[in-house]
Amino acid sequence: MATPDNDGVRAVIWADDRLRLLDQRLLPAQTAWIEATTAAKVADAIRDMVVRGAPAIGIAAAYGAVLAARACGPDREALMRELDRLAAARPTAVNLGWAIARQRRLVEESVGDATPALLAEAVAIHEADLSANRRMGELGGALVETGDVLTHCNTGSLATGGYGTALGVIRSAYADGRIGRVYADETRPWLQGSRLTAWELIHDGIPVSLLCEGAAASLLASGRVSWVIVGADRIAANGDVANKIGTYSLAVLARHHDVRFMVVAPTSTIDMATPDGAAIPIEERPEEELLSFAGKAVAAAGASAWNPVFDVTPADLIDAIVTEVGVVEHPGLAGMHELMGQRA
Amino acid sequence: MATPDNDGVRAVIWADDRLRLLDQRLLPAQTAWIEATTAAKVADAIRDMVVRGAPAIGIAAAYGAVLAARACGPDREALMRELDRLAAARPTAVNLGWAIARQRRLVEESVGDATPALLAEAVAIHEADLSANRRMGELGGALVETGDVLTHCNTGSLATGGYGTALGVIRSAYADGRIGRVYADETRPWLQGSRLTAWELIHDGIPVSLLCEGAAASLLASGRVSWVIVGADRIAANGDVANKIGTYSLAVLARHHDVRFMVVAPTSTIDMATPDGAAIPIEERPEEELLSFAGKAVAAAGASAWNPVFDVTPADLIDAIVTEVGVVEHPGLAGMHELMGQRA
Repeated sequence: MATPDNDGVRAVIWADDRLRLLDQRLLPAQTAWIEATTAAKVADAIRDMVVRGAPAIGIAAAYGAVLAARACGPDREALMRELDRLAAARPTAVNLGWAIARQRRLVEESVGDATPALLAEAVAIHEADLSANRRMGELGGALVETGDVLTHCNTGSLATGGYGTALGVIRSAYADGRIGRVYADETRPWLQGSRLTAWELIHDGIPVSLLCEGAAASLLASGRVSWVIVGADRIAANGDVANKIGTYSLAVLARHHDVRFMVVAPTSTIDMATPDGAAIPIEERPEEELLSFAGKAVAAAGASAWNPVFDVTPADLIDAIVTEVGVVEHPGLAGMHELMGQRA
Repeated sequence: MATPDNDGVRAVIWADDRLRLLDQRLLPAQTAWIEATTAAKVADAIRDMVVRGAPAIGIAAAYGAVLAARACGPDREALMRELDRLAAARPTAVNLGWAIARQRRLVEESVGDATPALLAEAVAIHEADLSANRRMGELGGALVETGDVLTHCNTGSLATGGYGTALGVIRSAYADGRIGRVYADETRPWLQGSRLTAWELIHDGIPVSLLCEGAAASLLASGRVSWVIVGADRIAANGDVANKIGTYSLAVLARHHDVRFMVVAPTSTIDMATPDGAAIPIEERPEEELLSFAGKAVAAAGASAWNPVFDVTPADLIDAIVTEVGVVEHPGLAGMHELMGQRA
């Protein structure tokens, strides 16, 4: 089942001029694909979390722009409205806005049918993401000594164009024989760890143990873990990182236990226009996601819930931000500027 | 629905010579009672979490000893075996062993039928727990300034003889108008926060918002919370505290955010024979509790899980331990000895 490089999963596939999305809400019970035939369906799939993970959302939206161009034909106003709709599907991840901004620019520059240019761009974004993940795997993997690691949410092939960000680093270090076991937070309320990360790692033959978020402090205290490795939904200019709720908790706990903390994300996740974490909009999702499970109420009737789905980790709790153009250790404004200069 | 002092819930009832236990596994969907007619059934109810919460387990076990004495008649060896069975039902909470030790002593001292003496002792343990909780409510409540609080797991009427430990402090401070809202961790994997704490607080008219454990760090960073208030399953001689998994995480996070951290537990929870937290046995429960939900698999097939159900919070992260005989601020060996001397 495992491929030679432990990378056998894909969740966003463009083939035969059609976009297919693996419905991640149904994993691990079912492996079902949705065919997204319109930009509106892509936007719905992003909002409803058929596809999730900042890079994968950006890639899906880029293909959604192709579907919009094909449907709108010469009606540029309608096309721009469709692009706006895609960009608005979720608020926190910056890759979505970044991918749509690239497509919007192409529309503005194009004469005649924009579809071929948008398709070429979507494929380029998709392929660049995959190769960025491979490169981050090398760069981040080189930082990992022999031992176990702890990760959060899903940052793997399911969350990206393939291979993964944090999970790409883990794949790379595992392939080099430097990781014994991956500990994965179950990641409430959506259980991306239990449903997606475990599924993906088992698929690729990498040993994984799940734990509830509450057990992470005990795990770190045990000395078994050398690095906490996570992804990002948006990185501000000063190196503050917005990521799945629970990430900030892990960063505080890692520092308390002298365990190092690595954030892995392509430069498309870095938003130099956002000065710091306080300026990042944090999506709050419906209370219902906490109060019920699989359509069945788990909480007492009448209970309310606070359900922010991202949090902000201040740069000073981060030991390394790993991107496809390089690693920033002890990130701050200067280091992030230098990194982004290397990209240009 | 709310009683005048916000205390309308009971989970362990002895009436008409019968022990009835509220089946907490079925809350909040169903309010169903189990009649525990034998000591073996009480032990099963403790192990299977029909009844949970360190003080409630001790009370149920004390009544279980009564059922055993009634069934065993003059056969002292059989009775002692039943008491051993009750004491072994769960390993971490010390109240269980404490209650059974009291009953065992009475059996050793008694001549003839031990049942009346054991019943009187069980009732005394039950009533003493309730009045201890009222007293802790006063002592701990006096420490709470106006603001919101965060709690973990369930430490209320459901977990005790009534009123609660940490939730008793919260009831008391709420009754005094000094708490606006209770934030309650949902508390994976058993969701005691969502299922029990929310149910109990709603029943008694106290505003409650649930959050997943991963969101606690963001809540503490927001400045809304002045105290984290939790219970305990065992407190060592040096003030280290074993409690529901996730407690230690909250203690580290509270210290990081300059939020104070209070542990509320009767002196029956303090085990001076256990020198420190490292000597407390930590129960690991079946992986299945994390891997499935309501009988349905949520994790990928083949995933393993690490499921410790308690953790240890070192004394130096605790601002106050509140008991029925007094408060120990900045607990340590000397303070705990002084406290336990006051009890004698």
